[in-house]
Amino acid sequence: MLSINQVQELIKSEIEQTNFIKTPSNLYEPIEYTMEMGGKRIRPLLCLMATQLFNGDIQKALKPALGLEIFHNFTLLHDDIMDNADVRRNKPTVHKKWNENVGILSGDAMLINAYQYISQCESEILPNLLNLFNDVALGVCEGQQYDMDFEDRVDVTVDEYIEMIRLKTAILLAGSLKSGAILAKASEKDADLIYQFGINIGIAFQLQDDYLDSFGNQKSFGKRIGGDIIANKKTFLLITALNNATFEDKQTLKSWIDAKDFDEQEKIDSVKAIFIKNLVDKSSQKLMEEYYNLAMNNICQVNGNEKIKNELIDFAKNLMQRIN
Amino acid sequence: MLSINQVQELIKSEIEQTNFIKTPSNLYEPIEYTMEMGGKRIRPLLCLMATQLFNGDIQKALKPALGLEIFHNFTLLHDDIMDNADVRRNKPTVHKKWNENVGILSGDAMLINAYQYISQCESEILPNLLNLFNDVALGVCEGQQYDMDFEDRVDVTVDEYIEMIRLKTAILLAGSLKSGAILAKASEKDADLIYQFGINIGIAFQLQDDYLDSFGNQKSFGKRIGGDIIANKKTFLLITALNNATFEDKQTLKSWIDAKDFDEQEKIDSVKAIFIKNLVDKSSQKLMEEYYNLAMNNICQVNGNEKIKNELIDFAKNLMQRIN
Repeated sequence: MLSINQVQELIKSEIEQTNFIKTPSNLYEPIEYTMEMGGKRIRPLLCLMATQLFNGDIQKALKPALGLEIFHNFTLLHDDIMDNADVRRNKPTVHKKWNENVGILSGDAMLINAYQYISQCESEILPNLLNLFNDVALGVCEGQQYDMDFEDRVDVTVDEYIEMIRLKTAILLAGSLKSGAILAKASEKDADLIYQFGINIGIAFQLQDDYLDSFGNQKSFGKRIGGDIIANKKTFLLITALNNATFEDKQTLKSWIDAKDFDEQEKIDSVKAIFIKNLVDKSSQKLMEEYYNLAMNNICQVNGNEKIKNELIDFAKNLMQRIN
Repeated sequence: MLSINQVQELIKSEIEQTNFIKTPSNLYEPIEYTMEMGGKRIRPLLCLMATQLFNGDIQKALKPALGLEIFHNFTLLHDDIMDNADVRRNKPTVHKKWNENVGILSGDAMLINAYQYISQCESEILPNLLNLFNDVALGVCEGQQYDMDFEDRVDVTVDEYIEMIRLKTAILLAGSLKSGAILAKASEKDADLIYQFGINIGIAFQLQDDYLDSFGNQKSFGKRIGGDIIANKKTFLLITALNNATFEDKQTLKSWIDAKDFDEQEKIDSVKAIFIKNLVDKSSQKLMEEYYNLAMNNICQVNGNEKIKNELIDFAKNLMQRIN
């Protein structure tokens, strides 16, 4: 059994040893460039930990785990084009470094690559693993579409928002865990429990992300506080406020959303004050805790290796810094 | 056993009965729109005829065949964005009707959809079918990349060009045929023969397409004669001329390639005259016939249902109108 740190080293080593470069170079260099950008490799980590949780062979799960990471990076590549993002991890995005056509086509090749890696598993579990991956991949596209649709709406409900983050973010974390379970030939019940754990911790984590953007500590958060507010991003905080704040406060929020020229700090302060006054920050913390508790409930019912289970529980606790 | 016409009807009916519409609508409506655009459905047709060729159950091959058509349409959708095309089959392209983000994301969803349909086959053949499809899908991306790379080069060789069309066009036709063979559990030898038939007929067909653009009959061709010449498209004709024409003729060609303002008919007439003078049209016909003959040789060696074999041979003959 490998610890989380050891699994992270294993993943890092596997990626470093994988040669993504082939011809034509304009198709494959962006793939190597993207995979070298780094990142916490959470999805393959969750997959391999879940494999160990159910006493599976981690070596047999390595290629599919890599496939999940390739898939995740494919979504970032195409998302960056759609969001017109110039920078990722302090480097130029692929469509900036090369061009948009390269971004589209290399992304497509990455998605196919992901399938190639996912497929490298025992034949008897391939149908199950493939069906899960297909559902997860489509779910991520649906989540991204909802996210883009919400940009032009001021009437997004909290339920719609939770569904969007379930699809856009949580489903891939859940799918990574369940992939590990399938690779270890876990029972259907256990596979579904670990999947639900992933859904609930994923939603909790995204809610925390939204919360910290306005109420976090700049140093530990790593990003500018209030960035979402400036960008009118439809986070849980903004949506809850637009749904539940006083009439006057709703009007103020809408003016800020429509404002073209404004002082950024003034906007952040005003919107944050509305959040606090209307108990939006408290709602957010409450909902975050609810999903976190659901996740803990899921994983406690799992029938698996206790040591690994505790490592996963600790991992989730560390993710959810605001609660613990 | 169904005739080619009956198989075409079956495919048409299967597509009409398939409901592509789900939520979010901005993700799925473009898929329905694209699939409804029509087309000759050659790839599923080849798949199902190959299934029959090897006495397989055509009903079991229907979903994977549909997957091939969805994949093909996905490539058209993303290609149209990369080529900046406004129109396809006399209708606005998806990125024109909706927007570019919708084009990228719906395309991604179509690719995943294709995998969902390809996967609907017996477990024992899934690994084989999936490996084939992964290789074919990646090959198509490579072909598209080479095609885009060639736009800025005047030194493309004939070998490079043939490799590009093998990947961009022929590999999917070959893969469609081989998929049918795999679905019918044909021998590896027969599956490879029918694949090679597809490669060779695919290359012959693309060479014919290049030839007809300059030397075809406007009425039967359906497109404006000389369109490729105006667009400086690196066809077999242009590449052969750039490689083999007299020094003076090469210079003239390069001037036409670089020209910004020109009379279109004058350019077409001048370039065509260079082609004829340097026997480029004859080289093209000769190479077309070589690949066609290779294809006929492949299919004659196949051990399969003779009636279906003859239908496929007739189909290939009809495709290659210039030779027959």
